[in-house]
Amino acid sequence: MQQQTRLPVAAVIMAGGKGERFWPKSRVQCPKQFLALTGDGETMLQKTFRRIRSIVPPEKIYVVTNGEYMTLVQEQLPEVPTENLLREPAARNTAPCIALAAAVIRKRLGDAVMLVLPADHLVRHTSLCTDVLCRAASAAEETGALITIGITPSYPETGYGYIAFSRADDAPAGVYRADSFREKPDAETARAYVESGSYLWNSGMFAWKASTYLDALKTHLPAAADIADTLSEACDTPDFSAVLAEQFPKMPSISVDFGILEKAERIYTIPGTFGWDDVGSWPALRRVAKTDTNGNYRDGDILTVGTANCVFSGGKKLIAAVGLHEIIVVDTDDALLVCDMDAAQNIKKITEMLREQGRGELL
Amino acid sequence: MQQQTRLPVAAVIMAGGKGERFWPKSRVQCPKQFLALTGDGETMLQKTFRRIRSIVPPEKIYVVTNGEYMTLVQEQLPEVPTENLLREPAARNTAPCIALAAAVIRKRLGDAVMLVLPADHLVRHTSLCTDVLCRAASAAEETGALITIGITPSYPETGYGYIAFSRADDAPAGVYRADSFREKPDAETARAYVESGSYLWNSGMFAWKASTYLDALKTHLPAAADIADTLSEACDTPDFSAVLAEQFPKMPSISVDFGILEKAERIYTIPGTFGWDDVGSWPALRRVAKTDTNGNYRDGDILTVGTANCVFSGGKKLIAAVGLHEIIVVDTDDALLVCDMDAAQNIKKITEMLREQGRGELL
Repeated sequence: MQQQTRLPVAAVIMAGGKGERFWPKSRVQCPKQFLALTGDGETMLQKTFRRIRSIVPPEKIYVVTNGEYMTLVQEQLPEVPTENLLREPAARNTAPCIALAAAVIRKRLGDAVMLVLPADHLVRHTSLCTDVLCRAASAAEETGALITIGITPSYPETGYGYIAFSRADDAPAGVYRADSFREKPDAETARAYVESGSYLWNSGMFAWKASTYLDALKTHLPAAADIADTLSEACDTPDFSAVLAEQFPKMPSISVDFGILEKAERIYTIPGTFGWDDVGSWPALRRVAKTDTNGNYRDGDILTVGTANCVFSGGKKLIAAVGLHEIIVVDTDDALLVCDMDAAQNIKKITEMLREQGRGELL
Repeated sequence: MQQQTRLPVAAVIMAGGKGERFWPKSRVQCPKQFLALTGDGETMLQKTFRRIRSIVPPEKIYVVTNGEYMTLVQEQLPEVPTENLLREPAARNTAPCIALAAAVIRKRLGDAVMLVLPADHLVRHTSLCTDVLCRAASAAEETGALITIGITPSYPETGYGYIAFSRADDAPAGVYRADSFREKPDAETARAYVESGSYLWNSGMFAWKASTYLDALKTHLPAAADIADTLSEACDTPDFSAVLAEQFPKMPSISVDFGILEKAERIYTIPGTFGWDDVGSWPALRRVAKTDTNGNYRDGDILTVGTANCVFSGGKKLIAAVGLHEIIVVDTDDALLVCDMDAAQNIKKITEMLREQGRGELL
C-alpha cells in the first residue's frame, strides 16, 4: 500500500554552475542551465522550475546562483520572488550553496523540508519525478535523515556518480539505506555496478529538513556551519548583503557529496525511474531530445546526406552535413565546434587553449 | 638533344566554369577559379595568369568567361586588355568556348598558335610547366596538329580523364601520339592504366594553331564552324556584340574532349610532370596546399585537438576541431559544410536539395 506523502515545504534550485561542456553554446556568461538545449525553446532552468512548481508554490522556490547570472535567472524565472534569489558572492561548490539556502529557509520557514535540485538536469516523466520528490520530502520529515534520490541505472554510464544501496528495515517503505557514494567509475566498474543490481545513479537531487542539513554541516564541516548560523541570523536584516559578501567566501569550496554525503552516517535513498539525465555533454542530447529517423539531433537549419547519429546545434545559418557519423557540430556567431562523438571529453582542451591564448571573449 | 622551342603566340584562359564542388565557398556568383583556395591570397585564375604571363605577354592573353563573371575577371586580372575578355552569351561547354577564342585570334593575330588553359588548375613547378607549353606550341606550329598536354600519372586517380599514348615516329622528339581519350575510369581501370605505363592524365591544356582548331571544328562540328566563321568576320566591328549574342547560343553545348579530341585523327600529346592538379574537390586541397604536421589543411582561425588529415576552410570565426579524422569543414557567412572526406562527391546532393527548395541565394 502506498504510504501517505505530503508536499515538501521549500525547493532550492542550484543554478550557479559554470560548466564548459556545452561550449561553444554555453559560455561563462551563459552556462548550460540557461540554454534551451532540447530545441523546444525552454531552458534547462525553466524546465526545472516548471517541474517543481507543480508541487511547491513559487514563493517557496529558492534559486541560488552567482551575481553574474542574477539577471538571467530573473529573466527566465519571473515568477520567483526576488527575495528568493540567493546570490553566492563567490563560487564555493554545492555544500556551501545548500548551506546558504538552508540558513535562509530556517530563518524564514522554520525547520522546513527542503528539496535540493540541480538547475541543469532533464526529466522525461515529470509526474513520476515529482511523486518521488514528494515521497522523499515525507521521508525526510519522518526520519530526520538526509535523503538522496537515486536513479535505477539503465546502462553502465561512466559519467555519473553511483550510490551503493541496501534494504533498511528502520526506514519507511520504498526507502533504502545509502551505504556509500562512488565517484564516476571506469567502464568495467560501471558495468559491474549495473550488473550487481545494488547501485543507483546519484542524481544530485536531495530532500532534508534544514536542521538536518545544518546539523550534518556542524559535524562534518564545522567552520561552514558557523558561517551558516551567522547568515541565518543576518537573513532579512539590512546587513544581510554585507554579511553574506564577507562570510560566504570563507566557506570551504567543497561538494555536498564529498563534504557531507560520503561522511555522514545515516543517509537514505529513494530509487526513481523517471527518464532522468544530467545531459552532461553534447552526445547526451541524442539520448534526451528528439532525433530524426537517422538518429541525428537537429537544432537549426540542417540539411543532411548520408548522415547518422550526429548532433547538430546551429542558429539561423544553414548547416549542411554529408556522410557524417557520430559527429557533433555546434555553430555560434563567433565560434564553430566540430567534434567526434567519442572525443567530447576533450572539448575542454579547446577552452583551455583559448584561456592560455588570452581569448576570454570566446569562453 | 633538346629541340629548339619558340614562344606561343597567344594564350586562352577558359574561366566560365560554374563548378559546385567547392560549395559553400564557391557560389554561382563566384566559382572556384575566382577563389584563393590555397591560402596564399592568390586566386586560381590569378595563378593561371601569372604562370602564362612568363611566356605570353598580357596583350596576347585572352580570357573567355560569361557575363556574370566579367567584373570578377577585370578585378582579378587588371593587366589583361578589356578587348581580350571574351564574353560567352550562354554556357556552351569548352568546344564553343575555344571556337570563340580561335575566331577572334585568327582575325586579330592571323594563324597564330594558341595555348588553351583551364582557369582553375594548379601547377606546383611553374617553369617546368611553361617549358612544356613552349614545346607544345612549337610542336603545334611544326606539325599543324592538335597537341594535348598529358600528365605522367603519379597514382590511379579516378577523377581525371586519361589519354592512351604511343610512340610517334613522324612527330618531333618528346611528342607522342594520343591514341584515344578515356573518360574518368573506375578504380580498377585507373589502376590498370597507371600500371600499364601507356596512359597519361588529360590535363585539359592544349596547343594548336587557330586554323588547326577551326579546321577540326569544320570536320567534327560543322555547324559550330560556320558560326565561328561568322564571329571571326564580325570581330572588332561595331556589330560584334550583337552577332555574338545572336550566334554563340546556337553552338552545340559540347566539350572539346568529346566534340573534337575523341573524334579527330591526328592528335599528339606531350607528357609533362610539373606538379599539376585540377583541384577538383575539397579533399584535393590536402594534396596541393600546405598542411600542418597532422596533415590538416588550415585556412582560417583553426584550433585542433587530436585531429588529422582534415580540410578546414573558414573565415574570421574560430573553428575548433576535436578528435576529427578525414573531415572537411567549410564555414561561410550563410552556410556551413561538414563532410566526410570519402563523401565529397555527394556535396552536390546538398546543392541539388537547395535548388529543389528554391533556396538559390545559397547556391
